[in-house]
Amino acid sequence: MTYCIGMLVREGLILMADTRTNAGVDNISTYRKLRLYGNDGKRLIAVASAGSLSTTQGAIQRVTKGVPNPETGKYENWGTFPSIYDAAVATGRALRQVRDSMKDLAQPGVNFDATLLVGGSINGEPSRLFLVYSAGNTIECAPDTPYLQIGELKYGKPILDRALHFDTPLNEAMKIGLLSLDSTMRANLAVGLPIDLLVADAGAGQARINMRIEESDDYYLNLSLQWHQKLAKATEELPLPPY
Amino acid sequence: MTYCIGMLVREGLILMADTRTNAGVDNISTYRKLRLYGNDGKRLIAVASAGSLSTTQGAIQRVTKGVPNPETGKYENWGTFPSIYDAAVATGRALRQVRDSMKDLAQPGVNFDATLLVGGSINGEPSRLFLVYSAGNTIECAPDTPYLQIGELKYGKPILDRALHFDTPLNEAMKIGLLSLDSTMRANLAVGLPIDLLVADAGAGQARINMRIEESDDYYLNLSLQWHQKLAKATEELPLPPY
Repeated sequence: MTYCIGMLVREGLILMADTRTNAGVDNISTYRKLRLYGNDGKRLIAVASAGSLSTTQGAIQRVTKGVPNPETGKYENWGTFPSIYDAAVATGRALRQVRDSMKDLAQPGVNFDATLLVGGSINGEPSRLFLVYSAGNTIECAPDTPYLQIGELKYGKPILDRALHFDTPLNEAMKIGLLSLDSTMRANLAVGLPIDLLVADAGAGQARINMRIEESDDYYLNLSLQWHQKLAKATEELPLPPY
Repeated sequence: MTYCIGMLVREGLILMADTRTNAGVDNISTYRKLRLYGNDGKRLIAVASAGSLSTTQGAIQRVTKGVPNPETGKYENWGTFPSIYDAAVATGRALRQVRDSMKDLAQPGVNFDATLLVGGSINGEPSRLFLVYSAGNTIECAPDTPYLQIGELKYGKPILDRALHFDTPLNEAMKIGLLSLDSTMRANLAVGLPIDLLVADAGAGQARINMRIEESDDYYLNLSLQWHQKLAKATEELPLPPY
């Protein structure tokens, strides 16, 4: 399992991904699920992946080698897409091809589905963020619900719904995203530290923050502890039922 | 969808269930999913159901009419089970029979699976709580994790994991359960008010509280609002990332 969040607020774009993969509960590994292309001031494409590791690795590999644009016939890759929208659509096409190529391998209990988040900014366009489904179709993040999630998304959704708005400052949004990951990691062993984190100002072609939050990260450990204590206190303070 | 919680703490037993059922998102109804048998001071059996309404109604109907005990050959029903364990096992058997009887009706996208919570106390035994799976097998609630959930369980699990312990007082546990339902109802439209609530003291054969919390319930509305405000405040107060 995996949990990735993409947030697109007024001030910019954030992507977060845990790094745990598992085949069953007895085969757990650490894999990077947040990849960055460009990040040179002109082009920033961030891709987060959830689902079948073989499908997502296959799709990303395919785009790296170059995928034909059905309208122009030209091969495009991370270095040539003219916009994030084009990157998302082409990645969706690659994802579907890889998934379809695995149809013959299907057997009960084995699932080759995968989803991706594709976000960033190319040549100064406003930052955009897309969710790419296994079928290859995409949806775009919009201000009314300024986030998209893939993977193990339910445990960490309530805090996003309550606290995140389009006008939430970027560093506050980062904090809220980490709380969402914290709730998920407490509930599901298949989501775990370290966390890969990307933060980019709106329209930027280069990340402001591109780092890995390790198990020993003082801020994260303290955030998790304080959040737990504050939730306990808030729960305690609520009035008891009169029934 | 549905969300039901059963909590078994030192002081007693709580069952809560929402009342929304849906076939798709455009066919939503209100159905009671928490049923009570006995409640006469000697026998208290509470059954909460999630999943296919036709399966759960069929299984409960079957037990009401009487199901044969494979060891004794005698027919047993809600009024004759000698213990909650026997009630849970017999209900599981009925559930499996009903589900199997629907096999021929199966088609893609239609799921006849269902799960139940069966809890209470018969003839003065200590209160017990079981989760009954579609396959008919059961698991029992134990002090290390003093709750069981069925239905749409992920959104409301974090608050239970954080706040509920075996020594949590009964009225505090009631409050925590309502917060868990509140988180779920905010996240999933297929879970909704009113909420059916049952509270029984440990070992009691009669409920202390057996009521429906309606949309207009002052305490619930206030709890939901205060919780939202306290979460927002707690989130705000947490330190910002130093990255």
